[in-house]
Amino acid sequence: MIKNEVKAIQDIYPDDFSWCYGCGQKNESGHHFRTFWEGDQTVTIYEPKPEHTALPGFVYGGLIASLIDCHGTGSAALALHKKNGHVVGDGAEPPRFVTGSLKVDFLKPTPHGCPLKAVGKVEEIHPKKFKVVTEVYAGDTVCVKGEVIAVVMPATFLQNQ
Amino acid sequence: MIKNEVKAIQDIYPDDFSWCYGCGQKNESGHHFRTFWEGDQTVTIYEPKPEHTALPGFVYGGLIASLIDCHGTGSAALALHKKNGHVVGDGAEPPRFVTGSLKVDFLKPTPHGCPLKAVGKVEEIHPKKFKVVTEVYAGDTVCVKGEVIAVVMPATFLQNQ
Repeated sequence: MIKNEVKAIQDIYPDDFSWCYGCGQKNESGHHFRTFWEGDQTVTIYEPKPEHTALPGFVYGGLIASLIDCHGTGSAALALHKKNGHVVGDGAEPPRFVTGSLKVDFLKPTPHGCPLKAVGKVEEIHPKKFKVVTEVYAGDTVCVKGEVIAVVMPATFLQNQ
Repeated sequence: MIKNEVKAIQDIYPDDFSWCYGCGQKNESGHHFRTFWEGDQTVTIYEPKPEHTALPGFVYGGLIASLIDCHGTGSAALALHKKNGHVVGDGAEPPRFVTGSLKVDFLKPTPHGCPLKAVGKVEEIHPKKFKVVTEVYAGDTVCVKGEVIAVVMPATFLQNQ
């Protein structure tokens, strides 16, 4: 299992920030997306559940958009954590990001029944704003491309509830 | 209940096309988004479930992206069905669309615990391609804007599985 081999950024989010339906480890009903470094790229792997269909045999686009979204914020957190001199698991609390914008291009229907692999390239466009360009693979085929603008979460976010 | 008062486009999708996790009536685990006309705009109303959180108190962005996605394809289907001289419920089978691209701008955090209302404007940009610009309201506040390019589903789509 990947979980035992690699530390994902979501594994070290503080409890207060672990309730995301996409990637929060404490959200029992959620997808539990987990994002980690693979060389200088970021990776999230997820196998859609049987119900995650658009039509029988194809993956639901909203799930893929969700994967790209959480992969984007997770990738940005990985990148800023690294820039701050940390590696996942060294005990330091990672930064948290929110999604400013999300763009998804569905290049071809995504087959259901195999793991999807989101592969991201992260670019800092401002000290508090990162762009993550993602390709989603089913096997060797890029089925979807995505772009997330991720913004450092304001410190007041939780207080504004 | 809206379901008893208004016919949504998803209510009349053929069975083969009713398995979408977002809007398919036959997908028991899905969201069952339902899209209908309100004047010359299209509307989809959905109340996120307790687990659909980003952080406690705020709605998960991937769910909102899913809402905008299915609202987009549903709105395009409503528009082309109307252009073809039909009203929902007259017995004619509606056209089906797939999402070519999806863009979502998260303007502000979306509060959890109330229904969300997606309101769309549909524009034909090609006989087989429609643009749907959507605003997602929580109460009177627009929290998210979206744009979907929806494309008429190729007749060969189901055969290509």
